[in-house]
Amino acid sequence: MKALVFGGAGERSWDSVSDPGIAEPTDVIVKVDATTICGTDLHILKGDVPTVTEGRVLGHEAVGTVVETGAAVVGLKEGDRVLVPAITSCGRCAPCKQGMAAHCEAVGGIGWIFGHLIDGVQAEYARVPYAETSVHLLPEGASDEQVLFLSDILPTGYEIGVQNGGVGPGDTVAVVGAGPVGLATMMTGAIAGASRIIAVDLAASRLKHAEAFGATHTVLGGEGAEERIDEITGGEGVDVAIEAVGIPATFDLCTRIVKPGGTVANIGVHGAPTTLHLEDLWIKNITITTGLVSGSTVPTLLQLVRDGRIAPEKLGTHRFALGDIMDAYDVFAAADENDALKVVLTS
Amino acid sequence: MKALVFGGAGERSWDSVSDPGIAEPTDVIVKVDATTICGTDLHILKGDVPTVTEGRVLGHEAVGTVVETGAAVVGLKEGDRVLVPAITSCGRCAPCKQGMAAHCEAVGGIGWIFGHLIDGVQAEYARVPYAETSVHLLPEGASDEQVLFLSDILPTGYEIGVQNGGVGPGDTVAVVGAGPVGLATMMTGAIAGASRIIAVDLAASRLKHAEAFGATHTVLGGEGAEERIDEITGGEGVDVAIEAVGIPATFDLCTRIVKPGGTVANIGVHGAPTTLHLEDLWIKNITITTGLVSGSTVPTLLQLVRDGRIAPEKLGTHRFALGDIMDAYDVFAAADENDALKVVLTS
Amino acid sequence: MKALVFGGAGERSWDSVSDPGIAEPTDVIVKVDATTICGTDLHILKGDVPTVTEGRVLGHEAVGTVVETGAAVVGLKEGDRVLVPAITSCGRCAPCKQGMAAHCEAVGGIGWIFGHLIDGVQAEYARVPYAETSVHLLPEGASDEQVLFLSDILPTGYEIGVQNGGVGPGDTVAVVGAGPVGLATMMTGAIAGASRIIAVDLAASRLKHAEAFGATHTVLGGEGAEERIDEITGGEGVDVAIEAVGIPATFDLCTRIVKPGGTVANIGVHGAPTTLHLEDLWIKNITITTGLVSGSTVPTLLQLVRDGRIAPEKLGTHRFALGDIMDAYDVFAAADENDALKVVLTS
Amino acid sequence: MKALVFGGAGERSWDSVSDPGIAEPTDVIVKVDATTICGTDLHILKGDVPTVTEGRVLGHEAVGTVVETGAAVVGLKEGDRVLVPAITSCGRCAPCKQGMAAHCEAVGGIGWIFGHLIDGVQAEYARVPYAETSVHLLPEGASDEQVLFLSDILPTGYEIGVQNGGVGPGDTVAVVGAGPVGLATMMTGAIAGASRIIAVDLAASRLKHAEAFGATHTVLGGEGAEERIDEITGGEGVDVAIEAVGIPATFDLCTRIVKPGGTVANIGVHGAPTTLHLEDLWIKNITITTGLVSGSTVPTLLQLVRDGRIAPEKLGTHRFALGDIMDAYDVFAAADENDALKVVLTS
Repeated sequence: MKALVFGGAGERSWDSVSDPGIAEPTDVIVKVDATTICGTDLHILKGDVPTVTEGRVLGHEAVGTVVETGAAVVGLKEGDRVLVPAITSCGRCAPCKQGMAAHCEAVGGIGWIFGHLIDGVQAEYARVPYAETSVHLLPEGASDEQVLFLSDILPTGYEIGVQNGGVGPGDTVAVVGAGPVGLATMMTGAIAGASRIIAVDLAASRLKHAEAFGATHTVLGGEGAEERIDEITGGEGVDVAIEAVGIPATFDLCTRIVKPGGTVANIGVHGAPTTLHLEDLWIKNITITTGLVSGSTVPTLLQLVRDGRIAPEKLGTHRFALGDIMDAYDVFAAADENDALKVVLTS
Repeated sequence: MKALVFGGAGERSWDSVSDPGIAEPTDVIVKVDATTICGTDLHILKGDVPTVTEGRVLGHEAVGTVVETGAAVVGLKEGDRVLVPAITSCGRCAPCKQGMAAHCEAVGGIGWIFGHLIDGVQAEYARVPYAETSVHLLPEGASDEQVLFLSDILPTGYEIGVQNGGVGPGDTVAVVGAGPVGLATMMTGAIAGASRIIAVDLAASRLKHAEAFGATHTVLGGEGAEERIDEITGGEGVDVAIEAVGIPATFDLCTRIVKPGGTVANIGVHGAPTTLHLEDLWIKNITITTGLVSGSTVPTLLQLVRDGRIAPEKLGTHRFALGDIMDAYDVFAAADENDALKVVLTS
Repeated sequence: MKALVFGGAGERSWDSVSDPGIAEPTDVIVKVDATTICGTDLHILKGDVPTVTEGRVLGHEAVGTVVETGAAVVGLKEGDRVLVPAITSCGRCAPCKQGMAAHCEAVGGIGWIFGHLIDGVQAEYARVPYAETSVHLLPEGASDEQVLFLSDILPTGYEIGVQNGGVGPGDTVAVVGAGPVGLATMMTGAIAGASRIIAVDLAASRLKHAEAFGATHTVLGGEGAEERIDEITGGEGVDVAIEAVGIPATFDLCTRIVKPGGTVANIGVHGAPTTLHLEDLWIKNITITTGLVSGSTVPTLLQLVRDGRIAPEKLGTHRFALGDIMDAYDVFAAADENDALKVVLTS
Repeated sequence: MKALVFGGAGERSWDSVSDPGIAEPTDVIVKVDATTICGTDLHILKGDVPTVTEGRVLGHEAVGTVVETGAAVVGLKEGDRVLVPAITSCGRCAPCKQGMAAHCEAVGGIGWIFGHLIDGVQAEYARVPYAETSVHLLPEGASDEQVLFLSDILPTGYEIGVQNGGVGPGDTVAVVGAGPVGLATMMTGAIAGASRIIAVDLAASRLKHAEAFGATHTVLGGEGAEERIDEITGGEGVDVAIEAVGIPATFDLCTRIVKPGGTVANIGVHGAPTTLHLEDLWIKNITITTGLVSGSTVPTLLQLVRDGRIAPEKLGTHRFALGDIMDAYDVFAAADENDALKVVLTS
């Protein structure tokens, strides 16, 4: 089959590789119907993720059709259309039983293995381990594109931003970073009842998207952002500040704009430490959360899609045939100049 | 001043009575700008509430303007526009400190005293006890009608239906009874993220209103209702069943349509016991809640009004001058034939 | 092998039956090292549970040693000592993922299948379905007897009584019914921080046991019980009333002694409906919960055993060899006259 | 009257000052029956708290007897024995209504005003603002010493350590810092069901005290502490790490020993920022909390004292007459060499 193969820092190719086969009785094989590219894939290509070795098939977000099932699989059968989430869950370790597959022990303590520790889903076919406890049947009538982003960024925004932040009816929420994950956070934050959603970003183009995803206020990042948020909140600060960038400046901003009793929910992938101003914060009664998505809310998100309460397909701004994935990478790598959010690849 | 006076079962009049004055240092006097009539007032008039004595001024929902403050009041001043909630809260007893003013000990263990144990707000002026811990300043720009129903039915629907029911994103919720409180429950349930809201009522006219308040499905009550709900939910049952009628049949329906792990939230005012089928329910892992509103969520609801997320004024279908309250009672008492939800009385 | 076989109403025998074998790849076979008898087994013998057919091996509580594993089992191996819980969990259906294996869909919507829908564990060997997601490895150093009652009554008391009841530090808790499950509830309620535990029972002998399981007050059931509880609580009522009998009178008592804002947690297995006094309760802001145990707290309970915080083995008052189970049934069936709580059968 | 007066950095005296009088209708005056000295008082004396001005009477922890009440006070009367908490609560601002009096707006956004922004309770008499919403009647039979430490360090340990940390049955908890607040945290953590409590401190003498307050393991701080905790937890880390020192090294230790899904609850008063290793923590699914006590749990703690579940008086190692407070300060300032935890001053 053909697959997008990592060839070391800076190298990727749409190559012929061997077809995947059942390796464990809990595996299934899926034909990939739709996949996408994640910012993490770009990090891997820069060589930032040393655990990804040369020859690895990339990709961790897909919708597919089951074509083969392992001996222990009883709840899935050939022809089933499934969402393959970014996170693999064995369903039997302590973290999985607690809904925290992000730390699934059976796959090494980190549930993200597709396109990382095993071959991924930017390919014609993929092996899906622990399939019965990991994948989700598509609701009747749902299209591939409607659910594709439930593999990763929707539950990331919802679990790590909205749920960790404790967003509820009436809340004022700031989402710092209006990239795809930030937008997914706004979309799900609105569903959770947020009354005001303040989008903060350095790029005006992203702020324009934010309005379509539920932002009620937009604030240009950088100098002046804090003052502007103060104005909007009448000096009170926000109930929940969600960091969706991954650098010290935006994290620090979040700790300054959150009100006493509020929460800073970190979604961003950080590469460096930050300074935490405990000399101000110790007395402020705040909560800071961090986390990798577990996917525990995918069933909820599928219901919201089924009922037309969310339309995640709006994140897909550019469409390609799977065979044109090399072009799709080019477009996504230059997302800002192409005004791209997420690319959709279909077979 | 003039006030609506209870004269014993079946008797009401718009009468001259003495002006209220400050009785305790924590009181304020408000000029009533807007008020409404509650189903409870009709019950009182039928003689169903023996604790209400002859001569009592009725009414427990109002927006008003502060005209006088007691010696201990520092946070309110003449001219302040305030929402006067149905529930009085002393702010210092154990229930009040726990956000359960419904059982405020300082006013006798039940927070509903207006138009019940003391004179109410269907009057030109009213004395408001424990004012600083009970009333809420109106958000800038909010009209009287926008907030009037936050005195009682909005927080009742939200606290006793939605919050007690644990309604959250993706949930399927049945609201049995599409009267004003049921509609308020639908409106706030949608804000809390309910994915499907099934309105159940015997009257088709009420079901038509339900659609405007967030119902995604409507089911005619009575025989066949359970089967229809089963169809909608694919036999699964609902996550939350909210009783907003107050009779055994509807309560029992709720216990039959709720799924394992779900909640039955009772809002209805019951006058008779019901049969609880514990022989079926003991194993079902369900939760049943009851309660009188406390008003703890009024600040949240005011934020949702301020930000345009809810429009409670839609409940006001008929408008009258305060002086025409006798007519307003006639219309409200025949709500169904007048297709009335709530009446609005303004001075 | 030998097993305790149900022969229809009133009939049981210690019989030779075929050895169990692996039927599904997710099965394991265990040699039973310790088991016990449950009140439910007595109900079955009375013919009260028609879903149990003649020839069924009874029993749903065991500690055993793995002797064979199915093809899909990777986390368990021959020689592992395991707790076999009363509830089977497939780990992949929606209820299991939510920690509510009580309603596991893979085994028919009710997780209790041992000694009910499949052969049970009052036998020399037993087949354990969905083993990896159901059983628990014993903590190092734990004896069979220390953990045996974690199969059923400890988690039943903890999940359905203490957790559903929301018992927390400082609470006043009434446990109505001081049989084995009631005692398990007291033991775990004390761990959860209950400040006062009021045991209520008709039998003085049971109340004496209650004191050894954490009860701080004992009240003889029947007439006068309510008044006595009122005295203890200074008329306030209890924060949590836990029903551990299963008849209308005790359930009703619970609804009368619970304070506003409190919870009635039903554990009892009811065979008849009860009258729910909604005409009093609608205004009381109470919560009523029901449920079958899921076993989600077994890991927590194992930690408490490991650390010496609870000593569930105290429930085992009478010991027998497994081969003497017919005698054990006789003793347990006459628990009161033998002052028996639970019997322990070891191989 | 006589009082302990702050005279600027390094200066304190037991001086004659004017008797306090009612200033607001919500005030009461109490005769101080018992008081104590807090580490914060020592900080003030070092000149570290510039908001404390010369001439201020220090002290924020007391048990007293009401001797005079303001015009608006109806729930307290002369002769009532009351606990005066460190935190003043107006009961009517948004933070107070949410149980977060730490940020009471009526007293300037920070609820700690005694011995800080107004005269304190290390005196023969004290004026207590917002008395009805702030003080607590003593349970019958409780001695002054039994409840004195419920003014501050018990609720600090319980709310900011145990509750913010989400400590529950079965948890493994590390308390870093075994000073008085750390010990209060251990005492209340045990009540909340912690299965293992690991005390960490640089001083062996403090670790000895820790064992009397519920620690199940003790670890000498500094190099090697992390490894020792790893050993105890089998490499898993702790569920909850509670920081009770207030310096970067101990905070950082907490972030390293907490397991995925766990919580770091900061109690320590920090004077400097710290480095937060987000490059490791972003993926770890942890929660970090900070906070000043609000006193919302004092009623719960009073119940636990009433029922003999906690014995906070064990923290009082040295006793003095109030008139000897200058000596008491000397002893407390050299707590380590005197093996002092808290001093008790009685009039």
